[in-house]
Amino acid sequence: MSAMLDDTHELALRSWVKSANDPGSDFPIQNLPFGIFARRDQKQLPRVGVAIGDQVLDVAACARAGMFHGEAASAERLLVDDSLNRLMGQGRGVARAVRRLCVEILDAGNAAAERRAAEITVAMSDVEMLLPAAVGDYSDFYASIHHATNVGSMFRPDNPLLPNYKYVPIGYHGRASSIVPSGSPVRRPFGQTREDANAPPVFGASKRLDYELEVGAYIATGNALGAAIPLARVEEHIWGITLLNDWSARDIQSWEYQPLGPFLSKSFATTVSPWVVTLDALAPFRVPAVKRPAGDPAPLPYLASFENEQRGGVDLTLEVSLRSAKMRERGDAPMAVSRGRFAEMYWTLAQMVAHHTSNGCNLRPGDLIASGTVSNASKESRGCLLERAWRGAEPLVLPTGERRAFLEDGDEVIMRGFAERDGYRRIGLGECRGIILSEARSS
Amino acid sequence: MSAMLDDTHELALRSWVKSANDPGSDFPIQNLPFGIFARRDQKQLPRVGVAIGDQVLDVAACARAGMFHGEAASAERLLVDDSLNRLMGQGRGVARAVRRLCVEILDAGNAAAERRAAEITVAMSDVEMLLPAAVGDYSDFYASIHHATNVGSMFRPDNPLLPNYKYVPIGYHGRASSIVPSGSPVRRPFGQTREDANAPPVFGASKRLDYELEVGAYIATGNALGAAIPLARVEEHIWGITLLNDWSARDIQSWEYQPLGPFLSKSFATTVSPWVVTLDALAPFRVPAVKRPAGDPAPLPYLASFENEQRGGVDLTLEVSLRSAKMRERGDAPMAVSRGRFAEMYWTLAQMVAHHTSNGCNLRPGDLIASGTVSNASKESRGCLLERAWRGAEPLVLPTGERRAFLEDGDEVIMRGFAERDGYRRIGLGECRGIILSEARSS
Repeated sequence: MSAMLDDTHELALRSWVKSANDPGSDFPIQNLPFGIFARRDQKQLPRVGVAIGDQVLDVAACARAGMFHGEAASAERLLVDDSLNRLMGQGRGVARAVRRLCVEILDAGNAAAERRAAEITVAMSDVEMLLPAAVGDYSDFYASIHHATNVGSMFRPDNPLLPNYKYVPIGYHGRASSIVPSGSPVRRPFGQTREDANAPPVFGASKRLDYELEVGAYIATGNALGAAIPLARVEEHIWGITLLNDWSARDIQSWEYQPLGPFLSKSFATTVSPWVVTLDALAPFRVPAVKRPAGDPAPLPYLASFENEQRGGVDLTLEVSLRSAKMRERGDAPMAVSRGRFAEMYWTLAQMVAHHTSNGCNLRPGDLIASGTVSNASKESRGCLLERAWRGAEPLVLPTGERRAFLEDGDEVIMRGFAERDGYRRIGLGECRGIILSEARSS
Repeated sequence: MSAMLDDTHELALRSWVKSANDPGSDFPIQNLPFGIFARRDQKQLPRVGVAIGDQVLDVAACARAGMFHGEAASAERLLVDDSLNRLMGQGRGVARAVRRLCVEILDAGNAAAERRAAEITVAMSDVEMLLPAAVGDYSDFYASIHHATNVGSMFRPDNPLLPNYKYVPIGYHGRASSIVPSGSPVRRPFGQTREDANAPPVFGASKRLDYELEVGAYIATGNALGAAIPLARVEEHIWGITLLNDWSARDIQSWEYQPLGPFLSKSFATTVSPWVVTLDALAPFRVPAVKRPAGDPAPLPYLASFENEQRGGVDLTLEVSLRSAKMRERGDAPMAVSRGRFAEMYWTLAQMVAHHTSNGCNLRPGDLIASGTVSNASKESRGCLLERAWRGAEPLVLPTGERRAFLEDGDEVIMRGFAERDGYRRIGLGECRGIILSEARSS
C-alpha cells in the first residue's frame, strides 16, 4: 500500500484561500479532493475541480494559465470532462502529481497564483457539483459485522450471522444507473411488500424507507478480465473515497431478497458525495485493520498481508444527521443521529477489492465499491435507521416531538465524515445529502 | 405491445443473397438482426451490420451509397459506431425503419443493390463480431419456475420454492464489465468454496463450473429515474433479444450467496450472442403468456394485462450442445444436451421489465435484462448442467465415453435458438459459444 507521508501533509501548510485555513473546514490545502463541477451560469462545459475551503479550484483554468508542469502535465487534456473516469484511468500517480501541483498553486506563499484567483477559482455557491464519475459497475459490500449481526437478527432471528461471514467479504452487484449526486431529491419507491404472511402481498409506496451510511471507493486503473489483483497491489487501484447513502426500502427488501439478494429495494437511488478524497490525502490517517476477536478465523491467505494488518484501516469518523420538514420550517438544525468509525469494519477496502477480483472479474476506472453500512458495536454508532431505531422499537424523537422509526416524506438525511489526528490538519469528506419526496409519480 | 405483422414477414420474400434463402439459415430476409462487426483486415472502424444468410450487410456502406431514405435516414449518422447503444436509444421505430429499408435493399428483385453486393456486403467469415452494446447495467431474472424449483431443491431441500416466487419476478443485478461476445474463451474462476461444513473453506479453482441458458433483452429508449414504465408500454422499450450464457461456479455460489445473492460465482464471465433480433422480426411468433396452474395466485395488477396474457410470450426453441476437447480432436459434432421452450417461462419479458422499473429505477439504452435459466418441466429441457446432470447424480455421457457432472477444461458450450411457425420463415438467434480455459492466471 502506498500510504507514504510527504510534505503535502504538513500541518504548517496554509493557503491564500483564507477559508481553507479555518480549522473547521473540510477542505484545507492538505486535502484537495477532486470533483466535477458546472458553473451555475453555464458559461462553460463541466470540468474537473479541486475543493479548497469554500472555493473550487478550476484545474483546467490553471492549465490554461500555464501553471502545469512535470508529471501533472500529462493530465492537462483530461480536465474538461463531465466525469473523472479518464483521470482515474491514468492511475494514482497522475492524480498525485496534480494534487501536489495544486498544493503549489494554492500555497499561501504563491502570490503570483493568488493574483489570478478570479481566473482560477470559483465560489462553491456558484457551482453545481455533478456526479464525480460515470460508474460502469457499482458493487456494495457488507463489511460491518455489527450491521450484519443486527440486521440478520431482525431478518433471520434464528440465524443472524451466516457461517460464511467471517470468511467471505460478502458483497453484491448494485445498480449504477440510479447513482445520483448529493442534493438530488429521492422519490419514495413503490414496490411489493407483505406485512401479513397470511395475506397476499400488496403493491404500493414503501412504508419502511431507510438510509445506509457507507464509504465508497472509486477504482483507478482497472484489471484485465481473468487477471486478479493481489491484495498487496490493490491500493494502487483505489483512486479515492467518497461518502455514500445506500437508500433502502426495508419492507420491499425483506419480501424480495431471497434467494438472489436485494434488488428493487435498493435500485431506486444511491447518493454519493461530490468530492473524491484521494488515498494520498488520507495517508496520515491509516491505521491497523480491526483486530479480530479471539476465536474468529484468520482471513484466508489471499485476503491476508502484514501490510493490510498494519495499515489497512482508514480512521474516518462518520456522522449522520436528520432534519424533518417541520424542523426546517422551524429553522432547527439537523439532529445528530449516529457517529461511528470506519476503521472498525471487519473487512478493509483492500480486502473487498482483492476479493472482488479474485475470480478474475475485471474492474474499470470509475467503478464504485461501497463498504456496506458502517455500524460499530455501540447503539449510537449504528449507520441505518433500521438498526438505530431497532425496527421501530426504539424510535428517534426529534426536537419537534416527531418520532421516527423510518423516513417520512420531507426528511433530509445528511452524512458527513472526516479524519483527524494529532499533529495533522483535520480533513473532511464533505457531505452526502438527500431529501425524501413523496411517491407521486412523474409519469 | 407492438407485435404487428406486416409484409416484412411474408413467406414468399427472398433475397439476392442466396444463402439467406436456405431453409436452414438463421438469417433469412425475414429476420435481419443487428450487430457490431469489424473486418478482420481492420481497414475500417467497427460498425453496424445486419445478418443476411452467411453475409453481413454493411449498413453504413448502404447509406454512403445513397440507399437510405425516409425515417431510416435519421439513423445514418449512427451506423459507424462500436456499439448499438445510440441506435437503440432512438427507439424501436427507427430500427424498424432501418430493418424495412434493409428488406428493400436485400430483396431478390433489387438488381441495382445486387450489383453493388461487393460494396455493401461482407462474408461473415471475414468479420469479427463484437459486443452489440456497451451495457450500462445488466440485470438477471429467475423466471423459470422449474429452474427455481430444481435448484432450490438442491440448495434448500426443505424449502425449494420460496413464498415470494409466484408474486415477484425475482431478479438481481449482474456484472456488466465481464460480458463478452460469443467465441470469447472463459477462464475457470478461482474462489472460496466449502465442500465440508466441518472444515474451513478453501480458495482454489472452481470444481463445479456450469452454464445457464438464457434469453436477454436490450433496452431501447430508457425511462427517467422515478418514472416507472407501465406494463402496457414496456415493449416499446425492448429493442431486441439475444442468447445469453450466464456462466456459474456452483461451488462458489452455494457458499457465498446468502444473504445478498450470487456475486463472484457469476461475475467472471457472461457470454452473449452477437446478433440482436428485433421484436419486429419476432412478431409472428408471439404467443400467450404461460397459463398458471390452478391454485397459483394471479399476478398483481401492475404485472397483469390482457395483452400480456394473450401475446406476452415469445415462442422460441432453445438448444444447448456440448463438445469436449477430446470430441474436437476426434472430429465429433457437438452433442445435444437440452432443448426447451422460452414461452414456458413463469414471467414474460414484459413483466420482468415492468417490475424492474416499478420502483422508479431508470433503464438506459443498451441495458441488458436476462431471463434466468430457461428450463421447462421435462428433464430434457433443463437449461444448466446442475439440473441436467442433477448435481452430478445423473452425469451426461459424451460420445467419447467421458462423463460430465460439471464443465471440464476444454469443454465448449454452444447455445442456439430459433422461432418457427407454419406459414412463416423460421428465424434464428444465431449462436452463443464459449470454451472453458484452465484456471492458470495471466497475471
